[in-house]
Amino acid sequence: MPLKYYHAEPMANSLKSMIPLKEKGLAYESVYVDLHKFEQHQDWFLAINPEGQVPVLDHDGTIVTHTTVINEYLEDAFPDAQPASGPLRPRSPVGAARMRYWNKFVDEQVMNYVSMHGWHRLVRVVAGSIEDGKFEELMSHVPLPDQRKKWTQARSGFEQKDLDHALEKIGYALEKVEKQLGETAYLAGDQYTLADINFYSHCGMMVDRMFPQFEVNANYPNLVRWRESVSDRPAVQAALASEDRTQPGLRTWGGDGREHS
Amino acid sequence: MPLKYYHAEPMANSLKSMIPLKEKGLAYESVYVDLHKFEQHQDWFLAINPEGQVPVLDHDGTIVTHTTVINEYLEDAFPDAQPASGPLRPRSPVGAARMRYWNKFVDEQVMNYVSMHGWHRLVRVVAGSIEDGKFEELMSHVPLPDQRKKWTQARSGFEQKDLDHALEKIGYALEKVEKQLGETAYLAGDQYTLADINFYSHCGMMVDRMFPQFEVNANYPNLVRWRESVSDRPAVQAALASEDRTQPGLRTWGGDGREHS
Repeated sequence: MPLKYYHAEPMANSLKSMIPLKEKGLAYESVYVDLHKFEQHQDWFLAINPEGQVPVLDHDGTIVTHTTVINEYLEDAFPDAQPASGPLRPRSPVGAARMRYWNKFVDEQVMNYVSMHGWHRLVRVVAGSIEDGKFEELMSHVPLPDQRKKWTQARSGFEQKDLDHALEKIGYALEKVEKQLGETAYLAGDQYTLADINFYSHCGMMVDRMFPQFEVNANYPNLVRWRESVSDRPAVQAALASEDRTQPGLRTWGGDGREHS
Repeated sequence: MPLKYYHAEPMANSLKSMIPLKEKGLAYESVYVDLHKFEQHQDWFLAINPEGQVPVLDHDGTIVTHTTVINEYLEDAFPDAQPASGPLRPRSPVGAARMRYWNKFVDEQVMNYVSMHGWHRLVRVVAGSIEDGKFEELMSHVPLPDQRKKWTQARSGFEQKDLDHALEKIGYALEKVEKQLGETAYLAGDQYTLADINFYSHCGMMVDRMFPQFEVNANYPNLVRWRESVSDRPAVQAALASEDRTQPGLRTWGGDGREHS
């Protein structure tokens, strides 16, 4: 099969490039990488992606990494494979620019802040249960210095001021997204695009369960309407149903069970 | 004129979208926004870009912000206006993906770290010379919370640990870029692309003068060869010659005078 997708659980980055594959109806070989076993830092995986991160797209031997880059690649390589709702990347220059504006916002102003809280709750449990010598040994295989730092912080717990700052950023994002979705049906305009897939995967799908203090269902009606419309898409449902080896008690970051498990 | 470009001094963000305009030979109206007078936070400018940041592209009334987004927009809107060296965004899906990989790296792993040192040296002088009441008044017009925080930090001076971390990131970037430029003539392959323009504008053009401790000219021969080849391009020269109202003593962040002034 010409397309191979290396991924972990269907959330965040791994979900973000799986949804476009399903939306575009592209057949691909799914390769589950078990982060609970640190497979992403093992030699076989580093030979594919020297940065030691999932997901990875392999298209006939061409390796593409980083989800925003993968998703634009899929648009460039398979421009005609599109859902009935329209192209995932708008064909007009201004539509594509609006999509990229939101992709950039999610990539730079949202993703890492939600991720910090996720790591603080979930990875801390995983990293904290590893013996000292073993932890150092595992870290020696992590190629990116920032990623090593994140693991070490997750093991000891992130600083409260960083967690608070992350919450501020998420609150800001919710306000900004709510305002946009009061003006247009989707983030980049009236059509569902890669920008929606991005915000949904990194924040929208689980923000109410991860951060109940925002009372998302009560306070952000446009976001909720949008979230349901994205969640209802068959391609999104199919992606959410893919393999998940996370311990059930850790699945929602809050322990309430994932809606689409 | 259908294209209007709002910009400040020819460095960093303002340079980054000016170079493609010149490379593509697109006629545009240049609107200089005087950051020394905080024009980017004045009502007339906020009506154009509510985020209060330069640069901004106005194409027949369509407003595009954020340089990476602007530069892709120019490729989408003017695909046939290209320098003799080839398209600034490669036409092959894999070439475009490589360009976007490096754009993402510069946007997320380089830009803010160089910028922090620039602000620490230059904006601190500007912000530090403003009286207390006046400073608060100016800050009340800054729309982005992160930007208000950055101004406040620049006024008091950034924390040493943050400055040190930024230096580590810049050192990491220099190693990564040097390695790539040992394998390919330009960052995304054998052709000059938007990725080169990005790294050049945010780091490559001034890294040796801003951070002499890296001894760039001695230690990074591939980067130096690449920098000279980018600096020699007529479009880059033309962009670097555009209006600059920075006090001469502050121009290089180190006070040595800009090479291309």
